[in-house]
Amino acid sequence: MTLILAVDGGGTSCRAAVADHGGAILGRAVSGPANVSTDPKGAAENIVIAARAALADAGHGDATLSSLPAFLGLAGANLASAAEAVRGHLPFERCVIEDDAGTALQGALGDMDGAVMVLGTGSVLFGRRNGSIFRAGGWGFAVGDQGSGARIGRELLQETLLAYDKVRAQSPLTTAVLAEYDSDPMRLAEFAQQARPTDFARFAPRVFSAADDGDAVALDILDKTLLQVEAQLQAFLWPECEALCLLGGLAELYTTRIGARFRAIVKPPQTDALVGAVQLAVQEFRTTGQIR
Amino acid sequence: MTLILAVDGGGTSCRAAVADHGGAILGRAVSGPANVSTDPKGAAENIVIAARAALADAGHGDATLSSLPAFLGLAGANLASAAEAVRGHLPFERCVIEDDAGTALQGALGDMDGAVMVLGTGSVLFGRRNGSIFRAGGWGFAVGDQGSGARIGRELLQETLLAYDKVRAQSPLTTAVLAEYDSDPMRLAEFAQQARPTDFARFAPRVFSAADDGDAVALDILDKTLLQVEAQLQAFLWPECEALCLLGGLAELYTTRIGARFRAIVKPPQTDALVGAVQLAVQEFRTTGQIR
Repeated sequence: MTLILAVDGGGTSCRAAVADHGGAILGRAVSGPANVSTDPKGAAENIVIAARAALADAGHGDATLSSLPAFLGLAGANLASAAEAVRGHLPFERCVIEDDAGTALQGALGDMDGAVMVLGTGSVLFGRRNGSIFRAGGWGFAVGDQGSGARIGRELLQETLLAYDKVRAQSPLTTAVLAEYDSDPMRLAEFAQQARPTDFARFAPRVFSAADDGDAVALDILDKTLLQVEAQLQAFLWPECEALCLLGGLAELYTTRIGARFRAIVKPPQTDALVGAVQLAVQEFRTTGQIR
Repeated sequence: MTLILAVDGGGTSCRAAVADHGGAILGRAVSGPANVSTDPKGAAENIVIAARAALADAGHGDATLSSLPAFLGLAGANLASAAEAVRGHLPFERCVIEDDAGTALQGALGDMDGAVMVLGTGSVLFGRRNGSIFRAGGWGFAVGDQGSGARIGRELLQETLLAYDKVRAQSPLTTAVLAEYDSDPMRLAEFAQQARPTDFARFAPRVFSAADDGDAVALDILDKTLLQVEAQLQAFLWPECEALCLLGGLAELYTTRIGARFRAIVKPPQTDALVGAVQLAVQEFRTTGQIR
């Protein structure tokens, strides 16, 4: 039996599946972050850890990992230099590295055309139209990733400091946030100066729940954020696009809030990006004759 | 003759003056950044370099630096832990460390009440009312420093990427900025991910000059930025405040643009923060009897 390896890697975690030549998944595993742009060596290590564990989960722990044809969908690999950097640390003899657009689209939409918006720690748009894949956004939270948890959290901390300075009104949410830093804005500012996207993003679910409770600052942040998300969707979607999948940790929270014209085409994802990676792996390795 | 040392240190550079007991400046010097919050050891080194050079400039190069009473106004020293960290690396036997509020106010307003808004790489507000000093803003560009060069530059890069994604209209300025990254948004995004405040801030003067040329994106950025700056001033100023000094690299560019109600009380600074530091040093060391 020919085994294949499929990987879905991103900044939060790395997931691997071992499948047979027909795409039936025999084993799965998860490991730590695979951030190819900031840490290609660490990303490669986590890819190998997840792959080895998936192989064990499939009951083939004694197989030679490096001999499996590997298909990797990795966030950040659209940057060619990042993809090559991680490749140099990987043991696989046959290894296809793509970015996360194809695997996300395949998992969400199967072979159909449509759009995916990932709304998690970061945000990014993927589209497939007449079979061609394209993307928008996803430039990182410093100057992009509108709608992401990192941006929402950063906005909340900014509003908290503006409330402290009496530039804006405080709210139960800003008061609670400041209290977590001993009501000392300097401590909050120090945190923010060193915070990574995930540090900011952990505040995002609270903004949604505070908005549900009528918190004025939370509502204001979400109003502004939704305008940005809808502007991105408006620019990205094409007239005949009939399927929009929202993915990522904030997807569900957004689904009830985005404008009706977008909600009308929202579809639940068929499956996830790891299964998408398995499907693409089967297609790829059949085409190249490595499995039949 | 009793010599005293006064220092005005910030994230861009560190300036030192050696003065006599009456505050007459005998020597000056400049060295590299004194960023007490991110690099207390490097800050202390640059403080000593500037101090030694100022002593040489005063013709007292053979004097013992550590014996001079030293008064240091340092950006970031309002954080007590940062002030103590830098103190541990300094050689001075008698050393007063304060933050930059007092020296900026003293330099700009002398002994008068009034407000100072620093608009440079960062932004911060200082006020003196009935002799009491207070501050607002200055929380760092990630979640604060509205109106600063870092925020304006970050906004420009964000607008450039939104224009690339066709979410917003492009303009001559966004086209020119993208061209500097080989018209590759990924390269711009990589720069932005690692950019420090000064890296963003170098774009700010171009936003002002493009706005003068009618660039729609630049005008939009400045409109939004001015709203933020005016909201900060509105919250900060008090009814009887009759003097507002704008300081920092962008001060002149703002002076003609801020609303008439603020412009009505804008005054040119009397002198600079280094001279302010010398004045405070004389006051301090007279009070404590270290000079007469």
